[in-house]
Amino acid sequence: MILKHVIESQQFTVPMLVELFNMADGMERIVDRGGTGDYSNRIMASLFYEHSTRTRFSFESAMLRLGGKILATENANQFSSLMQGETLEDSVRVVANYSDVIVIRHNEVGGAARAAEVSSVPVINAGDGKGGQHPTQALLDLYTIHREIKTIDGVKIAMVGNLAEGRTVRSLSYLLGKFERVKLYFIAPKTLRMKQDITDYLQHHNVWYTEEEYLGKIVNEVDVVYMTRLEPAERIGIEPGHFFIDESIMKHLPHKSIVMHPLPRANEISATVDRDPRAAYFRQTRNGILVRMALLVSVLDN
Amino acid sequence: MILKHVIESQQFTVPMLVELFNMADGMERIVDRGGTGDYSNRIMASLFYEHSTRTRFSFESAMLRLGGKILATENANQFSSLMQGETLEDSVRVVANYSDVIVIRHNEVGGAARAAEVSSVPVINAGDGKGGQHPTQALLDLYTIHREIKTIDGVKIAMVGNLAEGRTVRSLSYLLGKFERVKLYFIAPKTLRMKQDITDYLQHHNVWYTEEEYLGKIVNEVDVVYMTRLEPAERIGIEPGHFFIDESIMKHLPHKSIVMHPLPRANEISATVDRDPRAAYFRQTRNGILVRMALLVSVLDN
Amino acid sequence: MILKHVIESQQFTVPMLVELFNMADGMERIVDRGGTGDYSNRIMASLFYEHSTRTRFSFESAMLRLGGKILATENANQFSSLMQGETLEDSVRVVANYSDVIVIRHNEVGGAARAAEVSSVPVINAGDGKGGQHPTQALLDLYTIHREIKTIDGVKIAMVGNLAEGRTVRSLSYLLGKFERVKLYFIAPKTLRMKQDITDYLQHHNVWYTEEEYLGKIVNEVDVVYMTRLEPAERIGIEPGHFFIDESIMKHLPHKSIVMHPLPRANEISATVDRDPRAAYFRQTRNGILVRMALLVSVLDN
Repeated sequence: MILKHVIESQQFTVPMLVELFNMADGMERIVDRGGTGDYSNRIMASLFYEHSTRTRFSFESAMLRLGGKILATENANQFSSLMQGETLEDSVRVVANYSDVIVIRHNEVGGAARAAEVSSVPVINAGDGKGGQHPTQALLDLYTIHREIKTIDGVKIAMVGNLAEGRTVRSLSYLLGKFERVKLYFIAPKTLRMKQDITDYLQHHNVWYTEEEYLGKIVNEVDVVYMTRLEPAERIGIEPGHFFIDESIMKHLPHKSIVMHPLPRANEISATVDRDPRAAYFRQTRNGILVRMALLVSVLDN
Repeated sequence: MILKHVIESQQFTVPMLVELFNMADGMERIVDRGGTGDYSNRIMASLFYEHSTRTRFSFESAMLRLGGKILATENANQFSSLMQGETLEDSVRVVANYSDVIVIRHNEVGGAARAAEVSSVPVINAGDGKGGQHPTQALLDLYTIHREIKTIDGVKIAMVGNLAEGRTVRSLSYLLGKFERVKLYFIAPKTLRMKQDITDYLQHHNVWYTEEEYLGKIVNEVDVVYMTRLEPAERIGIEPGHFFIDESIMKHLPHKSIVMHPLPRANEISATVDRDPRAAYFRQTRNGILVRMALLVSVLDN
Repeated sequence: MILKHVIESQQFTVPMLVELFNMADGMERIVDRGGTGDYSNRIMASLFYEHSTRTRFSFESAMLRLGGKILATENANQFSSLMQGETLEDSVRVVANYSDVIVIRHNEVGGAARAAEVSSVPVINAGDGKGGQHPTQALLDLYTIHREIKTIDGVKIAMVGNLAEGRTVRSLSYLLGKFERVKLYFIAPKTLRMKQDITDYLQHHNVWYTEEEYLGKIVNEVDVVYMTRLEPAERIGIEPGHFFIDESIMKHLPHKSIVMHPLPRANEISATVDRDPRAAYFRQTRNGILVRMALLVSVLDN
């Protein structure tokens, strides 16, 4: 697969997703071989206008696993500080002369698209703005389902927690809507329900979904429980146990099902769950490396 | 060319500059080949006491393009914080044991020279203090003229903006004064004219120069327009258009001439100029990599 | 030698130390060869919850000298900020999926041991907490004695300065206590004497030690003078000259003896001593690279 830039999840069709996931599967062999000479002379620049050590490390690990090299800054706002006043566009044009691919984390919605417009090298969006995109997170979530459940068509998934503001569950719902016979169970406090733009989209594409207030009620029916972070402040007035998962819930989860979480977690998941083989959230982290390797290859081979 | 350290532009004679630029021309082949094994076991330490992501990235990209490796800190003041009280000299002696070349950005004039005095490995000055040296910037500016205009002897260059405080235009004037039949046009607000130490130096070496207040008057005569940054505060009382460049000025600039800028720019250059092939300021950035590669090779081969 | 993790100096027996130091001796050949292909596909993550550029650079240089690769952050508290509330354990589990070995600097005593408990890759302690361990510093100190004096058994060493709070002298005393016929001279201000836990340990293991207040008195008897940092505030009421070293002291130090210091120094050592070949404190820095290379190999080969 050849990609020019990776800016938003909407740019991926189902055939592209299938191809991407096949590439990601193959990346494990490259990791085992310690990279490939094809990328040993390529430089990835991490241009992070916001701190996100986790995402930056994941991309940098992916590039190193390919055999490539890294330029990194956690302080890209240096480039465009008020004092200096440089535009994002000028900074990107400069960094494009220093590197072969730019991974950008920007604080404004649309920052990555603006970067792609002026860059002479590929741009990958590592998150732009609170309400913006974080496409590689959505792709690694979907890839984890593909890898763990062996199919995305027909998957039954419960999404639990703050669905109103959760970027990951919103993007994942959108992507899952492209597949066949998917069933979505939204489990959220009344004030944090999945927003109407997503439910409208699902209805329009005839995707089955339901809204519940208690995970325990449907946990025995699902392939995936996707937990999200609930800040302490958001838990006020919420009955304990409803949006949290522990052994009492796990014992009703089918044997081949999994628990996912985008991390970092607060205490939505009891530590006792960590040892359960169905706890997939740290494997999800590792899958992120494979998906990002596949995306880097797709843009570098362009 | 073999260099022990790179501390100030004054250390370069014309024959050395010619040789350096020939080396820089050759670096493109090394970039295309993805580095050379000769430097794959060499470590460059970026020791930055001030943030300058742009300069740091440029040096690090140069070292990676050679095939080498990097140790980086944007927080070298850690080494010498008041609390710890370590001298610059001690920090450099330590880092010299960790690396094969030190690129230093220091906040005091003379910091790089002090580093060179105690270092057991070569030191390259990446800028020291407000009134200090930034020799690699001056060298990449001169290299850009060499590369774009094909000659430095006989070049006619307009320098525009804050010439009083502009480190780049001061160093470039100094270096150009070593070549033959050069003509310098200084275009500055009355309060920001080129200072007397430089004009005295030019007179003493019989270098032709003139001072103007309006770029439009001489733009049709020059090979290079070198724009510099004018902060909003510095523009008070300055008639618009005089120290800015846009299409109306560009249409009088000869076909083979170029526009340069050390970047970051404020709004001295209209965005419409960016698409003009004579806009050389982003190519200038790329030339910085080639010159820094040549300098790294010169000190590493020592 | 195969190690699972490197958490505290107590885990090393004398035979292990001997083997480690032999490995460290051999690392110079690997540095000269520019690394070894065996580690070219291995990633070391520097997970620093506290700034310590010096220690981070030393580990990163060691990994690069082996031929390996680096993921670095100086801001690991990002992972576990109060706002995000992630546990150290979760952060380590994530980073273990991005790397092959984690070098951790944590702000709490026991942080490295907690990391090792959950990590799927080896963990090396680069210092945890004020009263905690910094085992690689202790090992490089001991290695410097081995390398410079050619023997540790029978060594006579003066430790000078703030012995009460000096982590390095405490650890070194502990490690030296494992060898034969060692003699320790503690030279400290009355308020900063070596604490009883260490002197009890030495008595219990029949290690010879004495306490003095003036270095000059015994400097002609020792193989090693190990100076430590005395903050200006700690010098109040202390007679000058007692805990400082200059030429007047050096002229009584035997020809084959050495002066060590963990660095950074304040002004315990006169600058004139730097040129004396017995001043070993910058060589000590270089020895740190060799010891850390040996430790990295020991855990990566696991």
